[in-house]
Amino acid sequence: MIEVYYKIIAISRKVWSVMMEKSNSAPTMKDVAKEAGVALGTVSKVVNGLPVGEPYRIRVEEAIRKLNYQVNSYAQGLKANRTHTAALLIPNTYLPFFASLVYHINLALLKRKYRMLLCSTDYDPGLEQEYVAMAQQNKVDGIIGLTYNPDLILDETTPFIAIDRSMGPRIPCVTSDNFAGGQLAAEKLADLGCRNVAFLRIGSSLNNEPNKRKAGFENGCLSRGLPYEMKILNDGESYEEFALFLKEHMQNGKLAFDGIFCVTDTLAHLIIKMLSDMGLRVPEDVQVIGFDGTRHFGDQEYTCSTIVQPVPEIAEMCVELLLQENRQAKPPLVCLPVSYAYGGTTNK
Amino acid sequence: MIEVYYKIIAISRKVWSVMMEKSNSAPTMKDVAKEAGVALGTVSKVVNGLPVGEPYRIRVEEAIRKLNYQVNSYAQGLKANRTHTAALLIPNTYLPFFASLVYHINLALLKRKYRMLLCSTDYDPGLEQEYVAMAQQNKVDGIIGLTYNPDLILDETTPFIAIDRSMGPRIPCVTSDNFAGGQLAAEKLADLGCRNVAFLRIGSSLNNEPNKRKAGFENGCLSRGLPYEMKILNDGESYEEFALFLKEHMQNGKLAFDGIFCVTDTLAHLIIKMLSDMGLRVPEDVQVIGFDGTRHFGDQEYTCSTIVQPVPEIAEMCVELLLQENRQAKPPLVCLPVSYAYGGTTNK
Repeated sequence: MIEVYYKIIAISRKVWSVMMEKSNSAPTMKDVAKEAGVALGTVSKVVNGLPVGEPYRIRVEEAIRKLNYQVNSYAQGLKANRTHTAALLIPNTYLPFFASLVYHINLALLKRKYRMLLCSTDYDPGLEQEYVAMAQQNKVDGIIGLTYNPDLILDETTPFIAIDRSMGPRIPCVTSDNFAGGQLAAEKLADLGCRNVAFLRIGSSLNNEPNKRKAGFENGCLSRGLPYEMKILNDGESYEEFALFLKEHMQNGKLAFDGIFCVTDTLAHLIIKMLSDMGLRVPEDVQVIGFDGTRHFGDQEYTCSTIVQPVPEIAEMCVELLLQENRQAKPPLVCLPVSYAYGGTTNK
Repeated sequence: MIEVYYKIIAISRKVWSVMMEKSNSAPTMKDVAKEAGVALGTVSKVVNGLPVGEPYRIRVEEAIRKLNYQVNSYAQGLKANRTHTAALLIPNTYLPFFASLVYHINLALLKRKYRMLLCSTDYDPGLEQEYVAMAQQNKVDGIIGLTYNPDLILDETTPFIAIDRSMGPRIPCVTSDNFAGGQLAAEKLADLGCRNVAFLRIGSSLNNEPNKRKAGFENGCLSRGLPYEMKILNDGESYEEFALFLKEHMQNGKLAFDGIFCVTDTLAHLIIKMLSDMGLRVPEDVQVIGFDGTRHFGDQEYTCSTIVQPVPEIAEMCVELLLQENRQAKPPLVCLPVSYAYGGTTNK
C-alpha cells in the first residue's frame, strides 16, 4: 500500500516537472533548433531519420528530451501523405472469431509501427459507408474490412484488403481455405465411422467465401461415399427450423444422423443444446464438428471439435498485402490452410 | 450469381467515374470555391459548420459533391487541435470481458462521431508507454486505458480515463462496484442455502479496483454469519494450487464447501472443470458464482451464475468523461452498479 502511494507521488512529480517545462505552448521544432544550437534543417533531418553528423544528432536528441518536444504526426501526415494508420472494419468485437481477428491484426500492424483505427460496424451498411468516407478523409494508409455490405462503394485508390468476401477484381481478399475445411469435416466424420451425416448452415446469402464450406463438404461426402443431407437457413430465419429438421429425422428415439457438420462453432453450440434437449448424447449418439476454432474464454480449450481458421496467419497476410507498395503484384484471392482440432464433441 | 456480378460492374463504373473526375490531384477548397462561384471563406464556413446564407450553403454543397471534395482532417486536426479520435489501451481483445468493452466503447465513441485508435497492449508495459507517446504525438483527443502498468508515465495534459485501476488523483477511474459485487455473491450463496463457502482469486497484486471483490465478499459473509475460507494466488502461480486447496478440503468424497465464489468467470470455468474431475457435481454438490457476466459466444447464455459488470454503462461513462470539457468537474472514481445473473451453476 505504502509502495503504491509512493509511486503515484513519483508520477505526479514527473508530470508536474514536465508541465512546468511546457508552460502554455508546446515546443516547436524551432525551439529545439535554438536549444541545440543547430539549424532548423538539422532538427528536421534527425526527426525524419535522415543522416546527420553524430555530434549534431546527439545535441538535437538531448534538446528534444529536455524540451519534451513531441513530433506532430498530423503535420508529418499532411506532408508525407502517409499516416502509419490503418482502419479495420469489422461487424463487432464480441463474437470470438472477430475478437481474435481484431487482436491479431492489431498485433501485426503494431509490429510494423502502424496504428489501427477500429470501426465496429454492427452490420450497419450506412455506417460502413460512413467509415469508408471517414477513412478517406482521414487519409489512413489503407483499410482491412470484413463486411457484408453488397452495396459498399470503394474508391479503388484507397488500399483495401477484404476478409471473407471479394469486393471486386482489384481488391485482394484473404480468407481461410473454406472449401478444404468443408471437405476435411466430411472426411473426418467418415474416418470417425459415421454412416449418415448432415450439414447445417445459417448465414448471409451473399456470395462470400465461407459459403464454399458447403461445396467442400458435399465433395468430401461424395468422394467417401458418405450419404448426407443439408439444412440451410437464410439470415433472419429462426433457429427453430433446425430443431424441426432434427425432430423430423428421429425414429424410435434414434436420430438418422450419426454425424453433423455445423457451419460455425456458434451454430454447433446451439445444435448441441438442441440435441441434448432431445435426449441425445454428443459424441456417443451424434458426433458434431464446427468451424472457426473458437476457444472458451479466448485462449482455453476448444468449444467443440472444429475446423480451425488460421487467424494469426490471416491477420499477417492482410497487413502484409495492405502495406505492399506494388499494387499490381497483389493476388485477388488468398486462401490459407485450415486444420482439424478435437474438442470433445467427436470420438477423437 | 448474375446479380452479384452486376453489382461488381456497377461499383467499378462508379469508382471509374470518380477516378476520372479526380484525375491526378485531389480537388482543394479553392477548386470548390471556383466551382460554386463563392469566396474561399464561404466554403470554409460551410465545411466547418459555421452559419452562411442558405443559397450559398446549397451551392457549396453541390460543388463539394460534384468535385468529390474530401475534407482533409489532418489539416483540420492541425488547425483546430482536435482530432475527433480517442485511443483505447487494453491488454487484448480475445478475453470476453475485454472484447465486450472494446465493442461498447467503440459504439459510444461512434455515437459522438469519434473514431477509435485501438491499442492492444498484450500486458507489455513498454508497449503501453509507447502507445501513450504515440497518442500524444498523434494528438488524439484523449485516451481510455485499462492497464496493469504501475510505472506508466502520463502527461496530465492528455485527457485519460482509467478503467479498473486508479492512475492518480486527477485521472478519473471508471469501474464496476466491485465491493458491492463481492458482497452480493456472498449474500446470494447464503440465500441459496450455503453453510460453508470459499473465495478463490488469482490476479494482479496491484492495488486495483477488482481487488475490492474480496473485501466485499468477506463483508457479506460476516454480515450473514456465513463461514468462509480464502485461497488467493498471485500472477504466475499455478492453477494447480487451487486443485490442491480443494483436495485438502475433501473428506469421505465430500467437499467442505457447498458454495464457491470465483473472482472471474474464467476462473469459475477452470474450477468447475476441477470439481468435475474430482467427481463433484455443480450445482448439486457445490454452487459456483463467477464475476464478469461472460456469455457463450459473446451474446448467448451466461457461462456460469455470475455477478454481471455493466459493460455498456462503463463504456458510456468513460467516453462521457473523456469528452467532458470541464476537467475540474470530473470525479476521481466512478463505481457502477452490478447485478446477479443465474447461469446454471447455482440452484437459481
